[in-house]
Amino acid sequence: MTQAAILSRKADFPGLMTPGGDAWHYLDTAATAQKPQAVIDAMSNALGRDYATVHRGVYSRSADMTLAYEAARRRVADFIGAKSENEIVFVRGATEGINLVAHSWGGLNLKAGDRIMLSQLEHHSNIVPWQMIAKATGAEIDVCPLTDDHLIDLDALETMLTPQHKIVALAHVSNVLGSILGVKRAAKLAHSVGAKLLLDGCQAAPRMRLSMTELDCDFYVLSAHKLYGPTGIGVLWAREELLAAMPPYQGGGAMIDTVTFENSTYAPPPQRFEAGTPMITEAIALHAAIDYTQALDMEQLFAHESALAAKLRSELRAMNSIRLFGPDKSAGIVSFEMEGVHPHDLGTILDEENVAIRAGHHCAQPLMAHLGVSATARASFGLYSDESDIDALLRGIERTTRIFGQ
Amino acid sequence: MTQAAILSRKADFPGLMTPGGDAWHYLDTAATAQKPQAVIDAMSNALGRDYATVHRGVYSRSADMTLAYEAARRRVADFIGAKSENEIVFVRGATEGINLVAHSWGGLNLKAGDRIMLSQLEHHSNIVPWQMIAKATGAEIDVCPLTDDHLIDLDALETMLTPQHKIVALAHVSNVLGSILGVKRAAKLAHSVGAKLLLDGCQAAPRMRLSMTELDCDFYVLSAHKLYGPTGIGVLWAREELLAAMPPYQGGGAMIDTVTFENSTYAPPPQRFEAGTPMITEAIALHAAIDYTQALDMEQLFAHESALAAKLRSELRAMNSIRLFGPDKSAGIVSFEMEGVHPHDLGTILDEENVAIRAGHHCAQPLMAHLGVSATARASFGLYSDESDIDALLRGIERTTRIFGQ
Repeated sequence: MTQAAILSRKADFPGLMTPGGDAWHYLDTAATAQKPQAVIDAMSNALGRDYATVHRGVYSRSADMTLAYEAARRRVADFIGAKSENEIVFVRGATEGINLVAHSWGGLNLKAGDRIMLSQLEHHSNIVPWQMIAKATGAEIDVCPLTDDHLIDLDALETMLTPQHKIVALAHVSNVLGSILGVKRAAKLAHSVGAKLLLDGCQAAPRMRLSMTELDCDFYVLSAHKLYGPTGIGVLWAREELLAAMPPYQGGGAMIDTVTFENSTYAPPPQRFEAGTPMITEAIALHAAIDYTQALDMEQLFAHESALAAKLRSELRAMNSIRLFGPDKSAGIVSFEMEGVHPHDLGTILDEENVAIRAGHHCAQPLMAHLGVSATARASFGLYSDESDIDALLRGIERTTRIFGQ
Repeated sequence: MTQAAILSRKADFPGLMTPGGDAWHYLDTAATAQKPQAVIDAMSNALGRDYATVHRGVYSRSADMTLAYEAARRRVADFIGAKSENEIVFVRGATEGINLVAHSWGGLNLKAGDRIMLSQLEHHSNIVPWQMIAKATGAEIDVCPLTDDHLIDLDALETMLTPQHKIVALAHVSNVLGSILGVKRAAKLAHSVGAKLLLDGCQAAPRMRLSMTELDCDFYVLSAHKLYGPTGIGVLWAREELLAAMPPYQGGGAMIDTVTFENSTYAPPPQRFEAGTPMITEAIALHAAIDYTQALDMEQLFAHESALAAKLRSELRAMNSIRLFGPDKSAGIVSFEMEGVHPHDLGTILDEENVAIRAGHHCAQPLMAHLGVSATARASFGLYSDESDIDALLRGIERTTRIFGQ
């Protein structure tokens, strides 16, 4: 992608400017992505001239809105290479998706003596729901270690997995390190002991071409707000036969077949898992976000962001004061620490230069403990990032060095 | 309110027109409310020029967004007369709010032998979550009957309640009938046997001035999309001491204090109940919706809609073919059936006249069974409704009568 192509793309994102009209170097896309105008327009139309409820009205606007909501589901299914839109459950976000699987699938399938396999680099959202269902069922948690270059160690996974393991839940791409999971081998290993594989796809979905069939996993979750879409909506994908066997997660309208006080019967998936009025306008805005993103070619996008990450790593490696984390080959996410400077102080100084990075534990405290730090600085790229953002970051780091007198 | 005042208000709602630019007589506000332009603009700005994540970033835009998100929580607290913003949990909608209470409070406090009191007119969202937790805990459900004019019968409630009842969960305003609960007496009765009172406020919050202190309930839920706000967000209010004692509902980022693989500790409420990236832009748009609604004076609004409901009931009562349901004095919701015409057919004919009503069971099948029907036609009013909407509905009913040759 040329610099000119990226610059023209930046113009699609009203969030990428400061109030004064200067360029804002937004390097926190792993936390949440900025939205193209097309997504904002889709949201405005859905909340305004097209607004109605779904699945219920007999009038034409409600029928149209239902078509639009279900078209969004089909668009998601196509985007992630699902077999059918019936495998797509709209949830609040990836966090709710994992909670749904842990509670519904885990509640049905886990018992005392069973084991759950996680990894050292998981986000809290892929740890705490499993701790909660482990406590409720008596199952226990194992933790797959990392290799020296901070990938999930699949050799270790192979030796650790036993027939007691019922589920393996791993990040497709680490939100801290950009480490990319060897999914096909992980799936093979999980399935070889009869375990299911859940992937946290929050960081992968905005950066990689996805095909559920090729990945051979069993559950996949993603958040729309990280995929250039709105807040308040995400996706749980699961194999249709798994969803069909799972009890509902929340009760309410729209997820039932019939209700009496003696007994209620539930609708088939995906409706069974979508209680209440759904995130109607959010689904439509997510549709627009996928249209925008996919038009760019996901493989080219991945190459673009990975090249930016490699360039940043190479520049940072040349600085004495910087310690880099994560593998050399990564998705567009780079974590580091600066000797003698707390990441929050670095973040604050960078903010004065219109550069936004994330400083903190990134909702991955067990990984921080493993790295021996309480926090890292993290720069993460999006489809609108370019070398001007790296240049601004490096200038800010140099200024920080001067301020701290190193 | 004068007709002119209402007409000028209609102009604030881009959804209240047909694609051809004609007036759309939207009488389905109990399903979901149209949004004023101020809400759409708040959403656009939050998704665009102001967009960032909350609670995490060290850069100024994220700090500003966090202030805006927490300002929305304070605005909700003020709107419903809560003691503190710490009593306000943002949820996906009222349905999730009830599920949260049933699972978290109910899971901790209900056991075999305990009883849950509902009423015959509850929405499925205030039935199914209780059936699920009853099944999980061994508690049992009782159903308070209705009076002849379709109010929840508080005399019956008084005789039915026992010390085995731990929770009473009732609609503040019926979504089908507009029936208004005598909340203070219900609270006194529930508390007299040591039970908590949960109110489903979906239909009351957009229509009545609320004060949690005066109502003396223990839990209250509402959905923003019924309050002229966005989809994807709602509110659970609970007394601070109840929230403090409740275990988390979903695990993930933002709701934790510390996470290790051995043990995780949880943040205090309300954060404990808000796992993952929240509905950021939805909270900000909800703030705008409350600003718009409250500026109109809730008591005047209630009087306006109730007067429209009374007028419609009076007109319908004069027609031989109509059977009316619900009490004479109601909030702005009127349900009826037309002899020999299925509500869906009526809805379809009305649609041709640019009149939108709801036809169906309104997610209240047990109430339908009690009324002896499978569906009703329902007209429901909002702050933008006026007599021209009633006139259009009546013209449509007359046309339907001619078509069906009655």
